Amino acid sequence: MRATLIHAARDIRVEDVPDPAVQRPTDALVRVTAACVCGSDLWPYRGVTDTSEPHRIGHEFVGVVEDVGADVSTLSVGDFVIAPFALSDGTCAHCRNGVQTSCVHSAWWGGEDEEGLPIDGGQGEAVRVPMADGTLVAVPGLGDGPDDALLAGLLTLSDVMGTGHHAAAAAGVGNGSTVVVVGDGAVGQCAVIAARRLGADRIIAMSRHADRQALARDFGATDIVEARGADGVAAVQELLGGLGADAALECVGTKESMEQAIDATRPGGRVGYVGVPAGGSELPIRRLFSNNVSVGGGVAPVRGYIPELLEDVLSGAIDPGRVFDLVLPLEEAPEAYAAMDERRSIKTMLRP
Amino acid sequence: MRATLIHAARDIRVEDVPDPAVQRPTDALVRVTAACVCGSDLWPYRGVTDTSEPHRIGHEFVGVVEDVGADVSTLSVGDFVIAPFALSDGTCAHCRNGVQTSCVHSAWWGGEDEEGLPIDGGQGEAVRVPMADGTLVAVPGLGDGPDDALLAGLLTLSDVMGTGHHAAAAAGVGNGSTVVVVGDGAVGQCAVIAARRLGADRIIAMSRHADRQALARDFGATDIVEARGADGVAAVQELLGGLGADAALECVGTKESMEQAIDATRPGGRVGYVGVPAGGSELPIRRLFSNNVSVGGGVAPVRGYIPELLEDVLSGAIDPGRVFDLVLPLEEAPEAYAAMDERRSIKTMLRP
Repeated sequence: MRATLIHAARDIRVEDVPDPAVQRPTDALVRVTAACVCGSDLWPYRGVTDTSEPHRIGHEFVGVVEDVGADVSTLSVGDFVIAPFALSDGTCAHCRNGVQTSCVHSAWWGGEDEEGLPIDGGQGEAVRVPMADGTLVAVPGLGDGPDDALLAGLLTLSDVMGTGHHAAAAAGVGNGSTVVVVGDGAVGQCAVIAARRLGADRIIAMSRHADRQALARDFGATDIVEARGADGVAAVQELLGGLGADAALECVGTKESMEQAIDATRPGGRVGYVGVPAGGSELPIRRLFSNNVSVGGGVAPVRGYIPELLEDVLSGAIDPGRVFDLVLPLEEAPEAYAAMDERRSIKTMLRP
Repeated sequence: MRATLIHAARDIRVEDVPDPAVQRPTDALVRVTAACVCGSDLWPYRGVTDTSEPHRIGHEFVGVVEDVGADVSTLSVGDFVIAPFALSDGTCAHCRNGVQTSCVHSAWWGGEDEEGLPIDGGQGEAVRVPMADGTLVAVPGLGDGPDDALLAGLLTLSDVMGTGHHAAAAAGVGNGSTVVVVGDGAVGQCAVIAARRLGADRIIAMSRHADRQALARDFGATDIVEARGADGVAAVQELLGGLGADAALECVGTKESMEQAIDATRPGGRVGYVGVPAGGSELPIRRLFSNNVSVGGGVAPVRGYIPELLEDVLSGAIDPGRVFDLVLPLEEAPEAYAAMDERRSIKTMLRP
């Protein structure tokens, strides 16, 4: 089959790889309907993290179950499934606590399972899914499969919608909250959706790009702030009557974005962060301490959020699929990376 | 009147100072019934923080209202009152949000008010209390005043009981929680009380001192761990079936204690911290991110907690006054500091 590999910074290739198959009784084989490129895929693409040898890439996909191992009990051949960006067994204490990303058997797409078998990346034609019962969520009632709009929405449940929701949940967003969202990428956009869904009154999106500002407004942002740093914080406070926000959702991962989030939070407020922390971003404890600003979040356990978010995607209550502004065939994966790297696309879908 | 001053590290003196009086319509004059020495008073005492010139010290006291300004509406002469360790107006947005320590008019005992008038320290015979309505809480129904046991309990509401409660609240302790408490001083002991009061199932106190272990057990600790660092974390996990705790209450403030708290928390769990952060203790964001451990807390807004905790102190449901294991006359303030510094006393009360 065909699948995407990263060879080095800015060197993405679609190549022939071995066809996957069920190898263990707990495996499923999934034919990929759609995959996509994640902001975190851009870290190795840009050379921020090292790529020592060519490897499979991609961790967001949806598709149709083509085969299941003998011990798989929640999935059947023909099911349309959502794959979260991390694998989990669904039974350990951490999974039961809703922190599936800390599963004692956690594994990652494009990596290896516990016994050293390779796990396919998501940006390919098919994927062997270990721990299929724990990892995958079947979408009921789709018949011949979702239409394009619904497909896009379902694909966001693989990562960005659940990740944006995690930021909002970790920051305690609820009815009447004032919220500032740092980051206008796909995760930031989904954080706006999540904040609105959880009842926020005021949602300030920090963005400098007209198209992203417009999308954020469509998703529920009540205000836009273009300024950054101290000026951006001052603009947020001016909108909120001199106070910081109840909740700041940090969806970037740089030292600057985290400081902006912390400074834009009112005393006693909470920062929810889901941006993978880049270098030099230890948290300034004295500033947090003196203002009683708490910080929560991390690598989002999206597996646990899929059921509740799926309901709202299926009903049309939320439409996160709109973050996809470019759809390319799998063979054009290199262009998908370039488009996201150059900010020509917020989020790019790949269709095998 | 007589009051305590710090002149330099290890140089505490009780001296004659001007008698305080009501100076503004929002002031009250309080005759101090009891005050005490705080763990944080030991920082300048030990020379960890600098004392550039002699100044008044002490920020925990209870007493009787002797005079009130014309605009004071919630207090009357003769009321027995609790003074939290920070002054607040009770009306600004931060106060209404329950973060009185961030009051826009916040001020500190022994410091100055907004117009530059000195504010008395708590370790003295009397105190002028600015913003008296916002700051003080009157205790109803005490007749001739509290007996010695109740007096001790009321005095803890000035700081340590509310601060321990803040750690537990910030960490989200609730019914069935598993909790580890780092720190066996008065705040750590009160954190044990708070965790139990909030419904924790399992409370592990980390302590190496037999007398403090015994007190923690009396207050509700179900287990004691003597080991520190990685060994201490391993011991906590062994007690909790291989997992970290739902909540870790950090009541010390050193880099080591914070790391111990973070490492003893399960993925998805929360650290509540109230120890004033000492040098070199920035938070390790990657470790927090990968485990979804959140960190909340800070300088405790004890003013907001007094009403609910007072009810339980008055009813006898909690007995935090037992943290006082030494009572000295005000004139022996130097010995009070020495006793706490040398760990001969968990918490020392001063009686003018």
